[in-house]
Amino acid sequence: MFTIRARSSSSAARSGTLHLAHGEVRTPAFVPLATKGAVKTLEPRDVAALGYELILANTFHLFLAPGPELVERFGGLHEFMRWSGPIITDSGGFQVFSMGHGGVADEIKGRGRRGASRAGADLAAGGGGSERAAEPSGAILAIEEQGVRFRSYVDGVERFLGPETSMAVQAALGSDIALVFDECTPFHVSRDYTARSMERTHRWLERCLRWHADNGLPGQAVYGIVQGGVERDLREESAATVAAGGCDGMAIGGSLGQDKAQMHEVVSWCAADLERAAPDRPRHLLGIGDVDDLIAGVELGIDTFDCALPTRLGRHGVALVPDPESRWRVDLVKAQWRESAEPIQPGCPCPACGPGFSRGYLHYLLRAGELTALRLVTLHNLTFIGALMSDLRDAIERDELPAVAAGLRKGDAPRSHAGRY
Amino acid sequence: MFTIRARSSSSAARSGTLHLAHGEVRTPAFVPLATKGAVKTLEPRDVAALGYELILANTFHLFLAPGPELVERFGGLHEFMRWSGPIITDSGGFQVFSMGHGGVADEIKGRGRRGASRAGADLAAGGGGSERAAEPSGAILAIEEQGVRFRSYVDGVERFLGPETSMAVQAALGSDIALVFDECTPFHVSRDYTARSMERTHRWLERCLRWHADNGLPGQAVYGIVQGGVERDLREESAATVAAGGCDGMAIGGSLGQDKAQMHEVVSWCAADLERAAPDRPRHLLGIGDVDDLIAGVELGIDTFDCALPTRLGRHGVALVPDPESRWRVDLVKAQWRESAEPIQPGCPCPACGPGFSRGYLHYLLRAGELTALRLVTLHNLTFIGALMSDLRDAIERDELPAVAAGLRKGDAPRSHAGRY
Repeated sequence: MFTIRARSSSSAARSGTLHLAHGEVRTPAFVPLATKGAVKTLEPRDVAALGYELILANTFHLFLAPGPELVERFGGLHEFMRWSGPIITDSGGFQVFSMGHGGVADEIKGRGRRGASRAGADLAAGGGGSERAAEPSGAILAIEEQGVRFRSYVDGVERFLGPETSMAVQAALGSDIALVFDECTPFHVSRDYTARSMERTHRWLERCLRWHADNGLPGQAVYGIVQGGVERDLREESAATVAAGGCDGMAIGGSLGQDKAQMHEVVSWCAADLERAAPDRPRHLLGIGDVDDLIAGVELGIDTFDCALPTRLGRHGVALVPDPESRWRVDLVKAQWRESAEPIQPGCPCPACGPGFSRGYLHYLLRAGELTALRLVTLHNLTFIGALMSDLRDAIERDELPAVAAGLRKGDAPRSHAGRY
Repeated sequence: MFTIRARSSSSAARSGTLHLAHGEVRTPAFVPLATKGAVKTLEPRDVAALGYELILANTFHLFLAPGPELVERFGGLHEFMRWSGPIITDSGGFQVFSMGHGGVADEIKGRGRRGASRAGADLAAGGGGSERAAEPSGAILAIEEQGVRFRSYVDGVERFLGPETSMAVQAALGSDIALVFDECTPFHVSRDYTARSMERTHRWLERCLRWHADNGLPGQAVYGIVQGGVERDLREESAATVAAGGCDGMAIGGSLGQDKAQMHEVVSWCAADLERAAPDRPRHLLGIGDVDDLIAGVELGIDTFDCALPTRLGRHGVALVPDPESRWRVDLVKAQWRESAEPIQPGCPCPACGPGFSRGYLHYLLRAGELTALRLVTLHNLTFIGALMSDLRDAIERDELPAVAAGLRKGDAPRSHAGRY
């Protein structure tokens, strides 16, 4: 299901093609989130026009509403949401465990909120953690060997999600790539907890693969998830175990550390371990989408990335721009843009910059609460990230990754026009 | 500025072309609202692709934020919002007077809320009142001969809007058509109040026209507004006065009665009066956008209509369909659509129906609060209304209006494909 087209001579980076049930995906690729079955503010035709070939939907949310039975009755998620290209579904593990923080899981895991409240914390503080899709408010009732009992944020009803349930839901959704059910181990737990959590994730992996072999959707690929926190030996053990399990691909999950340096270190371990254990299988990095992290991830040999960041920032009025000094971000809500006639990014062909919407106009619309602005900044951000990934793919194929990556890191604007605007 | 292309042999209906500073507009036409400088959930390219040639923006809202000075610094509203076609600006009168209801104006006008809370009441109860753009919360401080003092809903600062201010703001915005500043007389006031209010509106008309002659934007057309409530003789007097004032076009405003029958009667008076007083000048009906009212208005010789309804209903998940029994509405939020695989309207070419989004999917997205759904239903509603108006225009030009109007009234789907989908 994965063809490697080119390898960088100076790093572990590679370009390739994922051959999936609903089409091909050129890698390295960023995967926008269609969390609840829609990329927020966009239509599927917009996402395709931006050049994206693969999107990620969340099993946890779709499990609770509208429910897999309904989606299946509509002919699966592709038919339901009218997206004809490939879809990855998350396993629901991350959301279930995130939900617990501040609740029962605090006692179970004995520590603070840093680990799985990364998404919010990262947006606020700019930390190095991963950002997987929106954390629901709700409550874990029990984490057991069988799975997790929790209270639904939709209707307050007690629900259960475990390895088999997750795989069954993902089969009903009909995604091209299913992720196995894992415990997303947070950062502030003991090595001992991390080890036991990883071992359970490995047992869940086996159960997921068994369910898939017996009942799974033909043509649906399954990715295992490497856990092990920030422990070098646990990550190595996990990569080897997941690769040995025979998954079609491997995702890197769990806590990636307390800052970007540690995150890059942990990802570099995992990528190297996976290069040894399964050099020809695709690798996905879960919940990472900062510009510098995408560049670093590609250099480390990651093939796909998903993250709420570009779309979520868009809905907060934060646009991505080629400026490393500002962490590639410009907050259009800030008063400084009130009179600015410049577009978000001069020369950008996106539906926000191309027609010449000014920062001043977008600032005004954002302050006025106009939904048009959320859409425009989302379109820009996905254009920026799409062009960035396209630049990186091209650079690998021309074996010019070091120069291109260095340029992007110092603030070069991505040159590719990946979409049809 | 107005060419009549064809007249119906069986009614007062006519088709024509408005020749405006930023382009031509085929009439009869519906004018979507860009209340605060954006058609809610849409980009300008969407509005153009739907086939609309004219939009309406609100002076009151843009006066308060971002302010006419800023818009002017950006080169006017067309440049600011990146819409290159014609724009009408409302005078701000309706919003200023609406704001007062429940506040000081209750005492001034001595009566209940029915008159100017029509917009909300109409959505809820389906009454026959007009629906002009969103009513802000705020407070009128004083209604004087000079104009109206009120407290801004944006920042609580005391502001003033009168005839000259309104015209100056509209000149700064650079609209193609400016409306004169009027008092939107509510329904539940005495005949005496209605008469005095109309007379003040006429004095304000004169001041508006004087300001425009001395300081106005070259090429900006000015429409007067016919008031007079539900009083036959006052409406007649007002139509004659407004026509004699030399306005480029005439709008019908104020209270149109307590139900649809009365509304149609009042509009028929005004249209007949205007046909006598100014047969060759264009007529705009303010705040009316129900399907049956548009058909009736066209038959009465109305050339343009603006209304929040199609876009506001869209954001409430209510889609327009060719079904008079349900007042041309289907509420997609209702549980009955949960499992429906049918599109909003079979055969509709819009971006919601064309790609096959089901009522079930839209229902789910609306319940989940996904912004994509608000956009899709808005796109459908404007497609429906655009096709309806296009059908009516074609029918007038083929002199087949009675048959086409009868068909549309009994539930024929509009046949025109007015947009590029």
